[in-house]
Amino acid sequence: MSTALSKADARPKRVYRFGGGDADGNLGMRNELGGKGASMASMVQLGLPVPPGFTISTSACMDYFKQGGVISEDLKQEIRDALKETEKLMGRKFGDPKNPLLVSCRSGARQSMPGMMDTVLNVGLTSKTIKGLIQTTRNERFAYDSYRRLIMMYSDVVMEKAEGIEREEGQGIRDRLEQVMDARKKKRGAKSDTELTVTDLKELCAEFKTEVKSALKKEFPDDYDQQLWGAIGAVFKSWYGKRAVAYRRIEHIPDDWGTACTVQSMVFGNMGDDSATGVAFTRDPATGAGIFYGEVLFNAQGEDVVAGLRTPNPLNEESKTDQNRVLPSLQQEMPKVYQQLSDIRSTLEHDRHDMLDIEFTIESGKLWMVQYRVGKRTATAALNTALDMLNEGLIDEETVVLRLKPEQLTQLLYPILDPAAESKTKPIAQGLPAGPGGAVGQIVFTSADAIKWSKEGKSAILVREETSPEDIEGMRAAAGVLTARGGMTSHAALVTRGWGKCCIVGAGTLQISPTDKTLSVSGRTYIEGTWLSLNGTTGLVYAGQLPTISAKDNPRLLEFLRIVDKHRTMGVRANADTPKDAKNAVDFGAEGIGLYRTEHMFYGEGSDEPLFLLRKMIMSATEAERRHALDELEPYMKENIKGTLEVMNGRPVTIRLLDPPLHEFVPQSKIGLEKLASALHVDVDEVRRRGESLHENNPMMGHRGVRLCITYPEIPEAQMHAILDAASELIKEGKKVKIEIMIPVTSGAQELRVMKSIVDKASEDATKKHGFKVDYAYGTMIEVPRACMRAHDMAETAEFFSFGTNDLSQMGFGFSRDDIGGFLPDYLKQGILVNDPFQSIDKRGIGDLMKIAIERGRSRRPNLKIGVCGEHGGDPRSIEFFYSIGVQYVSCSPYRLPIARLAAAQAAIKAKRTSVED
Amino acid sequence: MSTALSKADARPKRVYRFGGGDADGNLGMRNELGGKGASMASMVQLGLPVPPGFTISTSACMDYFKQGGVISEDLKQEIRDALKETEKLMGRKFGDPKNPLLVSCRSGARQSMPGMMDTVLNVGLTSKTIKGLIQTTRNERFAYDSYRRLIMMYSDVVMEKAEGIEREEGQGIRDRLEQVMDARKKKRGAKSDTELTVTDLKELCAEFKTEVKSALKKEFPDDYDQQLWGAIGAVFKSWYGKRAVAYRRIEHIPDDWGTACTVQSMVFGNMGDDSATGVAFTRDPATGAGIFYGEVLFNAQGEDVVAGLRTPNPLNEESKTDQNRVLPSLQQEMPKVYQQLSDIRSTLEHDRHDMLDIEFTIESGKLWMVQYRVGKRTATAALNTALDMLNEGLIDEETVVLRLKPEQLTQLLYPILDPAAESKTKPIAQGLPAGPGGAVGQIVFTSADAIKWSKEGKSAILVREETSPEDIEGMRAAAGVLTARGGMTSHAALVTRGWGKCCIVGAGTLQISPTDKTLSVSGRTYIEGTWLSLNGTTGLVYAGQLPTISAKDNPRLLEFLRIVDKHRTMGVRANADTPKDAKNAVDFGAEGIGLYRTEHMFYGEGSDEPLFLLRKMIMSATEAERRHALDELEPYMKENIKGTLEVMNGRPVTIRLLDPPLHEFVPQSKIGLEKLASALHVDVDEVRRRGESLHENNPMMGHRGVRLCITYPEIPEAQMHAILDAASELIKEGKKVKIEIMIPVTSGAQELRVMKSIVDKASEDATKKHGFKVDYAYGTMIEVPRACMRAHDMAETAEFFSFGTNDLSQMGFGFSRDDIGGFLPDYLKQGILVNDPFQSIDKRGIGDLMKIAIERGRSRRPNLKIGVCGEHGGDPRSIEFFYSIGVQYVSCSPYRLPIARLAAAQAAIKAKRTSVED
Repeated sequence: MSTALSKADARPKRVYRFGGGDADGNLGMRNELGGKGASMASMVQLGLPVPPGFTISTSACMDYFKQGGVISEDLKQEIRDALKETEKLMGRKFGDPKNPLLVSCRSGARQSMPGMMDTVLNVGLTSKTIKGLIQTTRNERFAYDSYRRLIMMYSDVVMEKAEGIEREEGQGIRDRLEQVMDARKKKRGAKSDTELTVTDLKELCAEFKTEVKSALKKEFPDDYDQQLWGAIGAVFKSWYGKRAVAYRRIEHIPDDWGTACTVQSMVFGNMGDDSATGVAFTRDPATGAGIFYGEVLFNAQGEDVVAGLRTPNPLNEESKTDQNRVLPSLQQEMPKVYQQLSDIRSTLEHDRHDMLDIEFTIESGKLWMVQYRVGKRTATAALNTALDMLNEGLIDEETVVLRLKPEQLTQLLYPILDPAAESKTKPIAQGLPAGPGGAVGQIVFTSADAIKWSKEGKSAILVREETSPEDIEGMRAAAGVLTARGGMTSHAALVTRGWGKCCIVGAGTLQISPTDKTLSVSGRTYIEGTWLSLNGTTGLVYAGQLPTISAKDNPRLLEFLRIVDKHRTMGVRANADTPKDAKNAVDFGAEGIGLYRTEHMFYGEGSDEPLFLLRKMIMSATEAERRHALDELEPYMKENIKGTLEVMNGRPVTIRLLDPPLHEFVPQSKIGLEKLASALHVDVDEVRRRGESLHENNPMMGHRGVRLCITYPEIPEAQMHAILDAASELIKEGKKVKIEIMIPVTSGAQELRVMKSIVDKASEDATKKHGFKVDYAYGTMIEVPRACMRAHDMAETAEFFSFGTNDLSQMGFGFSRDDIGGFLPDYLKQGILVNDPFQSIDKRGIGDLMKIAIERGRSRRPNLKIGVCGEHGGDPRSIEFFYSIGVQYVSCSPYRLPIARLAAAQAAIKAKRTSVED
Repeated sequence: MSTALSKADARPKRVYRFGGGDADGNLGMRNELGGKGASMASMVQLGLPVPPGFTISTSACMDYFKQGGVISEDLKQEIRDALKETEKLMGRKFGDPKNPLLVSCRSGARQSMPGMMDTVLNVGLTSKTIKGLIQTTRNERFAYDSYRRLIMMYSDVVMEKAEGIEREEGQGIRDRLEQVMDARKKKRGAKSDTELTVTDLKELCAEFKTEVKSALKKEFPDDYDQQLWGAIGAVFKSWYGKRAVAYRRIEHIPDDWGTACTVQSMVFGNMGDDSATGVAFTRDPATGAGIFYGEVLFNAQGEDVVAGLRTPNPLNEESKTDQNRVLPSLQQEMPKVYQQLSDIRSTLEHDRHDMLDIEFTIESGKLWMVQYRVGKRTATAALNTALDMLNEGLIDEETVVLRLKPEQLTQLLYPILDPAAESKTKPIAQGLPAGPGGAVGQIVFTSADAIKWSKEGKSAILVREETSPEDIEGMRAAAGVLTARGGMTSHAALVTRGWGKCCIVGAGTLQISPTDKTLSVSGRTYIEGTWLSLNGTTGLVYAGQLPTISAKDNPRLLEFLRIVDKHRTMGVRANADTPKDAKNAVDFGAEGIGLYRTEHMFYGEGSDEPLFLLRKMIMSATEAERRHALDELEPYMKENIKGTLEVMNGRPVTIRLLDPPLHEFVPQSKIGLEKLASALHVDVDEVRRRGESLHENNPMMGHRGVRLCITYPEIPEAQMHAILDAASELIKEGKKVKIEIMIPVTSGAQELRVMKSIVDKASEDATKKHGFKVDYAYGTMIEVPRACMRAHDMAETAEFFSFGTNDLSQMGFGFSRDDIGGFLPDYLKQGILVNDPFQSIDKRGIGDLMKIAIERGRSRRPNLKIGVCGEHGGDPRSIEFFYSIGVQYVSCSPYRLPIARLAAAQAAIKAKRTSVED
């Protein structure tokens, strides 16, 4: 520890120095130093070469506000002292006209608030010090470019924003200066900034100063000291900037945390051929392979890398690609520096136990570490890195589980378009990424054609304006679905996501003509049979046949999921409605079926007889007619249920009795109506009339679910007979079955009692018929807000609750999911909603209703089983919340099961860690 | 006190005797004696002549069940002892073949459960004792008729139901015996039972016994003792009868209360000319006048009065009518008995402090009181009786307030059809009583005709299949509205109820043809211009012009309401949207406007320009177009608001910003579309397309309320400008204004913050314009379940909450009010719902959401003002609940204000009494 630092220890600490091998702070002091200050301190403590500087603490920031926006003389003195140490370490002097030190002033809060606060670079550059900079860098252009950047940034951040001056959009000082520069570029015929000459930049700096004076009625300060205090004050003030305040509201960050301000020497990689700037990853961010991977630009600055004007050199042999193979690597050009960097890679990885992304500058042969953060990586890289680090002993199993974001798993589960091919192809349209993975096929415009082409062994892409329940069969048959209308919760999106089928919805630029069988976009027309490729993960649509990659059956993925399941305590079930879905669910790790929708089987593949019989039942005018139709339906119902129960082989299957409003099943087509009329022995007008009488103003809150079951008790009765016959036959065949009967859309206890007597009566019938009783649990969906209030009474009859979070969110918010398009974008933009509540559960409102329901339910029946079977059951953030309120299992579509498994495991680990820390 | 009763005192009491001037129990012992037993005891204690008997206690009933449905020997002995006392007092002996005592065995619980439990009459009649009865009554026909009634009742209640034998409907023993009797009547050509001869009845009794034996495999017991124990046991068992258990579920009566069984001597008014039976009211039940009013039948039984075969004699001079004036009164025939009865009238009224309905029997010149209860009365009678009794010093003011049911007031507020004329006219149809009072007018079939006829000074009845917002003007102009479709919450019902206009909806037998301008019902056709009379309080429709009675401006009503307001603590406001409504509201006692719907003014009387401009605004494609239309609308908005504020004269006016989904305002007619197209300079197809784009699947949960205000902030801005301009102008004119701005359909705090900034900005504009600031309170509707969960955060911005209980019930239950017709009848019938939750608030579910909202809201803002402005604000049962959870005011339609005032006063008095008792 240097003498200077020891001396500093005696003071009341508000300024924390780092550099020269020692630091006042450390990684654990984020609260005081902010993220930036803490990471700089930690790098110094690891012995890494970091441009020296100091961090002014968050407490100093809050003092600044308490004192009315003034940097006290005490604090100024501390900063001057710290700056002197920095000067000493750098061998340059702040404000020195010969060898000036320039510094950056950066914000940094306890919790990352990316881009919400301000930064000022190149502080200390004046009409005097610029001369020294030109001399030491021998690069006049660079010096003037830095100068015009300082004027632009400083006048905007310090002189305008920090002074609370509000401008109309496009009228701020930055906008004005950009207009000045554009005028200059136009005059020069220059397309980019880099085409401006030294003279241009020199003149531009003068023009900038004039414009600043005219717009802000103040001179740009030509005084390094004044620049420093101004920049520090502005960084502090940006804590109360509009964006920062709005962000804190949303993220629930307290206002009294404050931001730290890190003042750090600027270093330059463009001081000659022994200078360079570069970025590197400690492992391959694409594959996770254990190579050191990166790029450098000699005699260049960071921004040149971004500008992409020069091809960067490879870091080493492993980083060589076709493009840069001819260029010498850093390893070849500066073997010593490379070795130093390679050691740093190892040091950092062993310290942080993760793959890191590092930035460095070499100034006149000296290596400086200017940044490091946890590296962004592909899902494959994340998976491989985590498992490798486990094997290397760097991390434990819990950390492995936490290393992949659940949503990342999606990338590993579906065949995808080959990214290499994609990067070379221009998309013809973009829509919303509704169903995951990639699909390649030939355009068809009707459901019938999709089925026909698929039967002929062709791969079809079903293109529709939007889909309706009548398209289901065609959607099943198609390789992918593309629609021009609809959002992430439209029919097409919900159905395909459930199947894990590639789907893009709401591609609004498409003009589809089903009659002409053409698809037009951007002036080009595509006919039936044209090849399309869809990327359902990004929403991009390509013309032609792109190659695909299968990422399934990855042994490392299976190994990862095995570890995940070891750490998971919450159950994971699937929403599945056919034996085929059930098989899929088991393959993806389902421990049961949490939602078997008795109406979905009617839309299955194969014969459309069941759907016809269902329609006949619905359009019956009398109970007798209805009972007759139900008798005809029963064999189909029994067969599907039996097949599903058999696949599940003793795992629990929650069977929901008829749920949707009947009008959903009314046929729209003339042929459909005629067929029904003939079966019912009435005329088409009568069938149409019956269909119309089922119309409702707000079907979501209409005659559906338990309400149907109560008004037409013969329907649940027939369903129960089918269920119990299926189970009885399996038991006779020596198979295992576990049934849970679930009543939908209940709002109170009395509905459950009435339904229980119907269910139990059917059970008595079945017991008489088969000579033994099939056990079943009896429970209810909780999807109506009133049910949450009445949960204690409902738990007297119900043995389990399964939250239908879709409907609970609809009714709780009073948001019809089909109709939110008119206001949801504004709600998200204005921060009224942080998320679409149908994607991620609204914890504070709908979540609170759930908490009340669970508390009340368990107060009456302590061993009440609680699950979730809404769409949120597959959403990681929602799963973490469900875990925290005592939900015992979630149920989601089979393709989201791995995601749910991972989210559930992470929730358990996080909860354990929190309870240890608390 | 008799020796016998003193002796009884020493026993552990399970049997309570009454009669002969003394009783073991009293009126306060309802819990032990049930209602029936307690009232008998109290009459005896008042010295009234009551047929002696005894009551077996509710504890004895519960013991009976504990002992497995057996009457213990101990209890039997107590009953035998009590029976002996009864025999002594009556001078007859139970089972005596010469002079037999017959008894009734009646149920009676702590709380009245009307008709839910069983009774057996004439117990003790056997093949032996019937001879004695014939001899003592000298009426063989009566004796055998009593006998066949005993067999019928006993076999049904004791031998079948109490044995738990369940039969298919129509297969019970009572049905079988009725078939036997019908066969006999057919054989005889007799139309009614009374045409059967003594011989018929004798043979019938024999046939009954045979049928009982054949159906129940048991003899009808020819043993008086066996009859007695059987009847007592059956009364006890009826406590667990199906109807009783279902009733207790609904009323939340505990199962362990049990029923008492009152065994009482039967007395007969048909023992000769010195016998009679009668009923009387202690005051006139029609007018409340202080006369003794009643009827008697000499030598007759109670059932003969019911049968209506003979015209009863008047009780006294005051009871004489045109029909019975020729008949001698009881006063004339038996002056002593009449005097005794007259004294009893006075004794009972002074004891019970209420108007009573009494039943008596005179057996051989001796008066017996067989029943008394609080008398049913008309609203007028209730009002006059209460005020008279206050003046007579019989009751205090609080009791006066409690004496009228709030709903009864309705009868006193509107002109009504003359009941005398109504009673002579046969209705042609019946619908639901949607709008109160009576209306007489000529049929019109279109809104335009209603307006035209009304302008010509004619009284029109608007007859429609159902009404839509486009009919509003015609509905206003018509004297009454009649529809064939729709329920109590249909458009027609809601609108007319708000206006206090007579309306009948859902008269399903009407066939309406607007093209032919005809109305057909029951084979008759009525053309335009035909006179109809509607009774909106009963739903009856009459052909022709019935006379009406105006009941308004009743000085006694005003006196009553003055007393009511003295005892009321909760505020009462009106829902009103125009100066005219406001005037009405003030006349009916409104202390403010709790709901001023800014969109309702567009449907007002007079010019349809505002509605056109509103449509133009809604169909605008750009913000500029919309702002232009809003500018045109502003003068209309300002004028209506100013007029309303002026009428309210400083009373608070809660103004709700735009609420309904926009598509509600889209014109349907071709002319309307064309006019709009021309104003917007686009073609009709474009207007139609814009209209269609506003269509929603579930508009109730769609783009409405605050959601509209946030996506089109120019709308609330314009509304605020109109409001504040109106207020500023009034203030300049020296008037008083008090404004509360209310945001509808909010689901969370952030919406309120965003809206607050729009509202405050408009206030700044107005302050600049007028030179002074208009104060306003800022608050929100609570009508979305999530808002109840987030109430604490919302209360940070909102100064008041006003519950929109209609929408809160819709979303809380997930019941669309427009679509409940399909299941609500079944829900009410099966006891799943006790009330229509849109008529009376669901306390346990929706009410609990309200409680949570109030608790959470006040936790953050203790002085948060809480009101209710949904339809429930005018429902007495709901008002009582609102009072109990801390609601400070209710707001309802002006015509329901007196009802709300009364309900609020009653809630305060009841709460005070409960807290004293607790």
